Amino acid sequence: MAKFLSDIEIAQQAKLKPITEIANEWNVEEDELELYGKYKAKINLSIFDRLKDRPDGKLILVTAINPTPAGEGKSTTTVGLGQALNKIGKKAFIALREPSLGPVFGVKGGAAGGGHAQVVPMEDINLHFTGDMHAITTANNLLSAAIDNHIHQGNSLDIDSRQIVWKRVLDMNDRALREVVVAMGGKPNGFVRQDNFMITVASEVMAVLCLSNDLMDLKERLGRMLVAYSRTGKAITASDLNVHGAMALLLKDAIKPNIVQTLENTPALIHGGPFANIAHGCNSIIATKLGLKLGDYLVTEAGFGADLGAEKFLDIKCRYGNLKPAAVVIVATIRALKMHGGVSKAELGEENLDALKNGFVNLSKQVENIGKFGLPVMVAVNKFFNDTDAEIDLLINLCKEAGVNVALNDVWAKGGEGGSDMAKVLVDMVENQASNYKPLYNIEDSIPDKVNTIVTEIYGGDGVIFTGKAKKEIKKLEELGLDKLPICMAKTQYSLSDDPSLLGAPKGFKITVKEVKVSAGAGFIVCLTGDIMTMPGLPKVPAADRMDIDEKGVITGLF
Amino acid sequence: MAKFLSDIEIAQQAKLKPITEIANEWNVEEDELELYGKYKAKINLSIFDRLKDRPDGKLILVTAINPTPAGEGKSTTTVGLGQALNKIGKKAFIALREPSLGPVFGVKGGAAGGGHAQVVPMEDINLHFTGDMHAITTANNLLSAAIDNHIHQGNSLDIDSRQIVWKRVLDMNDRALREVVVAMGGKPNGFVRQDNFMITVASEVMAVLCLSNDLMDLKERLGRMLVAYSRTGKAITASDLNVHGAMALLLKDAIKPNIVQTLENTPALIHGGPFANIAHGCNSIIATKLGLKLGDYLVTEAGFGADLGAEKFLDIKCRYGNLKPAAVVIVATIRALKMHGGVSKAELGEENLDALKNGFVNLSKQVENIGKFGLPVMVAVNKFFNDTDAEIDLLINLCKEAGVNVALNDVWAKGGEGGSDMAKVLVDMVENQASNYKPLYNIEDSIPDKVNTIVTEIYGGDGVIFTGKAKKEIKKLEELGLDKLPICMAKTQYSLSDDPSLLGAPKGFKITVKEVKVSAGAGFIVCLTGDIMTMPGLPKVPAADRMDIDEKGVITGLF
Repeated sequence: MAKFLSDIEIAQQAKLKPITEIANEWNVEEDELELYGKYKAKINLSIFDRLKDRPDGKLILVTAINPTPAGEGKSTTTVGLGQALNKIGKKAFIALREPSLGPVFGVKGGAAGGGHAQVVPMEDINLHFTGDMHAITTANNLLSAAIDNHIHQGNSLDIDSRQIVWKRVLDMNDRALREVVVAMGGKPNGFVRQDNFMITVASEVMAVLCLSNDLMDLKERLGRMLVAYSRTGKAITASDLNVHGAMALLLKDAIKPNIVQTLENTPALIHGGPFANIAHGCNSIIATKLGLKLGDYLVTEAGFGADLGAEKFLDIKCRYGNLKPAAVVIVATIRALKMHGGVSKAELGEENLDALKNGFVNLSKQVENIGKFGLPVMVAVNKFFNDTDAEIDLLINLCKEAGVNVALNDVWAKGGEGGSDMAKVLVDMVENQASNYKPLYNIEDSIPDKVNTIVTEIYGGDGVIFTGKAKKEIKKLEELGLDKLPICMAKTQYSLSDDPSLLGAPKGFKITVKEVKVSAGAGFIVCLTGDIMTMPGLPKVPAADRMDIDEKGVITGLF
Repeated sequence: MAKFLSDIEIAQQAKLKPITEIANEWNVEEDELELYGKYKAKINLSIFDRLKDRPDGKLILVTAINPTPAGEGKSTTTVGLGQALNKIGKKAFIALREPSLGPVFGVKGGAAGGGHAQVVPMEDINLHFTGDMHAITTANNLLSAAIDNHIHQGNSLDIDSRQIVWKRVLDMNDRALREVVVAMGGKPNGFVRQDNFMITVASEVMAVLCLSNDLMDLKERLGRMLVAYSRTGKAITASDLNVHGAMALLLKDAIKPNIVQTLENTPALIHGGPFANIAHGCNSIIATKLGLKLGDYLVTEAGFGADLGAEKFLDIKCRYGNLKPAAVVIVATIRALKMHGGVSKAELGEENLDALKNGFVNLSKQVENIGKFGLPVMVAVNKFFNDTDAEIDLLINLCKEAGVNVALNDVWAKGGEGGSDMAKVLVDMVENQASNYKPLYNIEDSIPDKVNTIVTEIYGGDGVIFTGKAKKEIKKLEELGLDKLPICMAKTQYSLSDDPSLLGAPKGFKITVKEVKVSAGAGFIVCLTGDIMTMPGLPKVPAADRMDIDEKGVITGLF
């Protein structure tokens, strides 16, 4: 058996084109391109004016079954599908999220697709890239500094320091910053209070950046962000502190989408990367819209499984971006479906047709759900080297029996070539099946009604329980007139329910909402069903431990 | 009288050349240039190989009298002198420090020279620029996270959490972070301890970056940084935590110097910006060396007045960079000398020849000091619009009577043209007066001896008093073998003494050293004579309050 090459080895063999050349081939003019080295660039938003009369391409969302430790390969499939569409003669762009530095130095060591379906230069994409994360960190923390400074300097807004909801952030896995006390040291340092640091991608500024349609929309959303309550219960926003202008200024370049390429020189926009639990988990609206203007197809993804990622993409991002998807691709692996069917990770190497059949219910429920948004859907079976022929045949047949479009996908091993079947099935579907996209619920509905719709329609649950705390918070949002917004569910990604151990397609459960918060700038209501970790820690031996760079600039340990 | 244009108005009228064109005119090859947009770039360090046989240009240090609230204009003079040298037919490069974001949003609102002697694009230089500050912040905080993680995961190095000297940083003026408690919240969050945040420019990582000669030197210095002591008193370094490789990786682009231009298209390298009190206050050795390879002259500056800035430049930076300056320019204004002569800021509008004469002692002492390093020196009188002819004549004559080269400098109002006299005097001096540069003290001397030499020779004091704490710390450094390093004095910049109210050239004083710390990676011993603020706060109305950006991207309030 041939030795598998590592991701970095494959990436190092790629023939990158200068990004100016990619841009030129794809209708981005020289004046619209702001280079960051030879292989990365930002695209000036003035391009939208020039292209405003060009019809939009087809928007394709790649999503997945509920994730398992077996892996699904959603990003790999997204990149590979973009490559495959170009291989079969379509003009396709890709749009992805930006990775966060924290996990790179923690467990993950970096990621940008895998195998022969990667975006490059992966070192740069995984390190500081074009500085967007740092700009978001800075804007977030300027607001924090402004809050404590306001209180220190007289507190004319009467901010209640017990009710500050805005948190500091850092793009680092650092458990020691989860719970901190700030402003110790007496009068010169301000008023002592407890505070928290989150990882940058959890900042509302990230969600705002990703849901803005332009710079002025960004500034207004920043201004609307809720930072605290006054002692009389009044909501205090960033605009009350008059810091949203400076924050927008800090984000003037971060709002411009970044263009890179895949191993096969397919253009990829990598821009924004909000959390997929307390936020909506998709790349920026601006990048998605730009890809639609520049390509006939724009392939993008959403975080976690379809119950969280696709639902938020369709109910939050598409609403705010006025986007109309053409079709959805659901990625599944035989290994992962076997886990949904009851097999443990250790036993995945053995063929198990019964488990696969049992686990199919998860895929089948996710397929059914996409139908509720009025969208054509297909399954992409992401091939793994030890899948057996019998397993593959069974899964294909299960899909066909259910009337679901399906294709095998071998982009990890073969790049775009390995995705050509998938691409052909997709194109056929898009050209012959109408998209009747509609969001799932009416935002004018009450918060409980909207959550109930998601739980019963998407998760397959029997209803919602709101804790006393959650009920009180809903009442407060209603009083403030902040309840007519889409819902952002913060739920475990591992199950359709709120219990991570319930795999497959559980029935007869209710979801418990423990906390309800508003991201008034981003424009959604976060419903938390459990504790969400917004600041990861480092493991005993962090990925940073094996990283190095030598005198020739050769990097090791990053992947 | 004609209306004065503001700095930003002047900058907006400038005709910038694409940085590729500047680079091309100045012998930087296309492959060596990494663009960040159209007007900023990084230069790959491979350029040093290509130019290794080219003789170095002349190194010119611009420094100043002790600063006063009247202003001296050191950066403006540095930029203007570079422009002026080119105007009179010399090939001159400029090297400056990078501004920190914190002060931009605090009081300062941004700065990059002034009037007709500015570097551009000033918006970018003052905001995220090419991301160096953010890279330094991240590298610093990765080390912090690694320290707390090491303790949390078992503490095999036996780090004494009461003796952690490494601090977190943020590029923000945020007084609430000066003194914090981290790792609250119980077992999952680590061991509670007190910590501090500093502003990023105060990080030793910044000093290390600026004193490194190449990437491997950088990595080794990062590894040597002292982060804590064990409970048995052993010094724990970043290399003990094995995180210096990952830190160097994070700094792989930050170590490359940034090239921009002045209003007159003179090339300027803006790279690194360490504090001038607890660190050495100069731009990077790499940028300085590169400017010397690319120009016949390299004009650079050092922080604060000559007693701190020039001394550290000559005793720390030149030592580590093996640099041999050709001459020193001391900037003075008539207004500032009048303050040194006893006039209050409110009375500066009135002619006062006696005060000017009295204040001249400060300038005269700084001139004398430069002579102790074996260097030719000249005075640049930075013209201010309400200086009287009698005052100007008096100052010029005082210099001439003392046998000191002097020239009027009007670069703020007239750009390079206004500095041509100064440039001619400088060139004449450099061509006709030999530089016999030697550092002030031997690094093999004891810490008290080295400090005593600086105090008596440079400050004009009678000696040094070390507090009990300082003596104990010196003993510890001697035990650790970390005492044979150059000294970095952290002293008030306003006086030659350690009392900011003693202007002019005070006599009969002693300096009290209260604390002695080592920056083992940067390679210097910091002697603190008082409390140094390493995390500024925001004022009642921060500069951020007036900043904005409109739908056309037009920025207001930044300057």
